[in-house]
Parts: sequence; structure tokens; C-alpha cells
Amino acid sequence: MYMKKSNRREFIATTAIAGAVAASPAIANSLQAGKKQLLHHVFFWLKNPDSVEDRSKLIEGLRTLAGIETIKALHIGVLASTEKREVVDTSWQVSELMFFDDAAGQKVYQDHAIHEAFVKNYSHLWSKVVVYDAMDV
Amino acid sequence: MYMKKSNRREFIATTAIAGAVAASPAIANSLQAGKKQLLHHVFFWLKNPDSVEDRSKLIEGLRTLAGIETIKALHIGVLASTEKREVVDTSWQVSELMFFDDAAGQKVYQDHAIHEAFVKNYSHLWSKVVVYDAMDV
Repeated sequence: MYMKKSNRREFIATTAIAGAVAASPAIANSLQAGKKQLLHHVFFWLKNPDSVEDRSKLIEGLRTLAGIETIKALHIGVLASTEKREVVDTSWQVSELMFFDDAAGQKVYQDHAIHEAFVKNYSHLWSKVVVYDAMDV
Repeated sequence: MYMKKSNRREFIATTAIAGAVAASPAIANSLQAGKKQLLHHVFFWLKNPDSVEDRSKLIEGLRTLAGIETIKALHIGVLASTEKREVVDTSWQVSELMFFDDAAGQKVYQDHAIHEAFVKNYSHLWSKVVVYDAMDV
């Protein structure tokens, strides 16, 4: 991951709020080497694409996934108001992006009871799901 | 964005390497409120999907985009070695994920000379592109 100076500054602000935590030299070294992460990006098409209620319900369900310990960061999204171009897919309604340390971490998430409960309780809301799993180069 | 404690620790390590920078109260406040970001995720299908050389060339081209100032973070990816499931699209070869502060930042990137040079110099490599623009909820 490339991180700009302004982001580094923001993260100092975050950590100042969170309270100081001692940094281990091992972690510092892995970051100096540029730690690669696995990105798991899922797009959902709702059965009722115009239902604000169903969209909110699915978002509520996705928030429960944050309890899975191998997820390093979680973004839940909706369509952004960017320029409509032919290459931009705007047919989905809700997205979920997760960062993992590796494929093993993603597998822990996949088989986790919280994830299974999410599928059980919320899968009636969607008609289609597309998943992209990318590894940082 | 949800960030686990272990990540906060890692970012302290990063900032320690980068050198201390004074955090402004304004930035701290925006982070406490949970700053939402725009995610721009692009998937590329190469004309020669099995060409390691073409894949490397495209990755080289994507790295030049890091010079665009409104990109807050950039991930360049290839297929991860996760479990093959029906919902996982594994037909693409290279991905690019960028974080922007807002749609205006994404538009600056879209019209930027570096981005235009990238399209001019590298678009002969791909046959298809799909873009997803998501806004954090």
C-alpha cells in the first residue's frame, strides 16, 4: 500500500486518540518491507434494488462482520456519485471491502460463525453477489 | 473504516519510521467522526491473459498513478489464492484500488495528465475494464 504523508499525519492523530501503544520492532520491519494484504471485495445486488429499507438491513448485517478477528479493516459502501461512464458498473447496491493479512485469514472469516449467521439472516435480501479477491503486488 | 487495535499499532510503527509530524485538532476531529472515503476499484482483463510480461507492464503503469495528489492510498493487485467458489470472479488479471476523500478528488485523478499518459501508454494491454465506485456508509 502506498500511503501519502497527509494520511500518515491522520493516523498519528488516530493513534493519539486511541492512546499510545508500544510498537514492536518486528512490526516496524514488516512495514518497512511493505506488508502486502489480501483484499476481499464483494458487491451485492438486492432483490428489491429500490428498497432503502432492504439496503439498510443489509448494511446492518455487514456491520456484524466487524467482529471477526482476522478482518484488519472493513469498508461498507454504496454507489458513489462519480461520473457515469460506460466502464463503470452502477447496477449493484451495496459493497463490502475487507483487508486480510493472507488467504488463511480470509478462510477463517469465510468459515466463521458470525459470517455463517450473516448469510443465514441476510441472504434473502440479495439476488446476486460477485466477489473479487486480490493480493497486493 | 473500522480499524483494529493491531492496525493502529502498525500505523504507529509506520509513523515512527516516517518521523513525527504534528497532528492538527481538525484532522483528529474528522477522524473521530469517522471520515468516509470514496473507493475506486478497477479490474483489468489483459489481451494476453497468460502473458507475465504484459501483466508486469500494466503493473508498472499503474505504479505511475501514485503521483496523483488526490489519491490517498493505492493498492495494485493480482488474483489471490483463495478458495474457488462460484461467486468469485477469477477471470481478471490485474486490479487497482484507490481511496479518495470525495468525488471531486476522483475527478481530479480522472482528468490528471498522469492518468491520461497511463491510458495512452498502457491501454493497448487490456481488452476490458470494469470499474466500481463505492462511497463509505
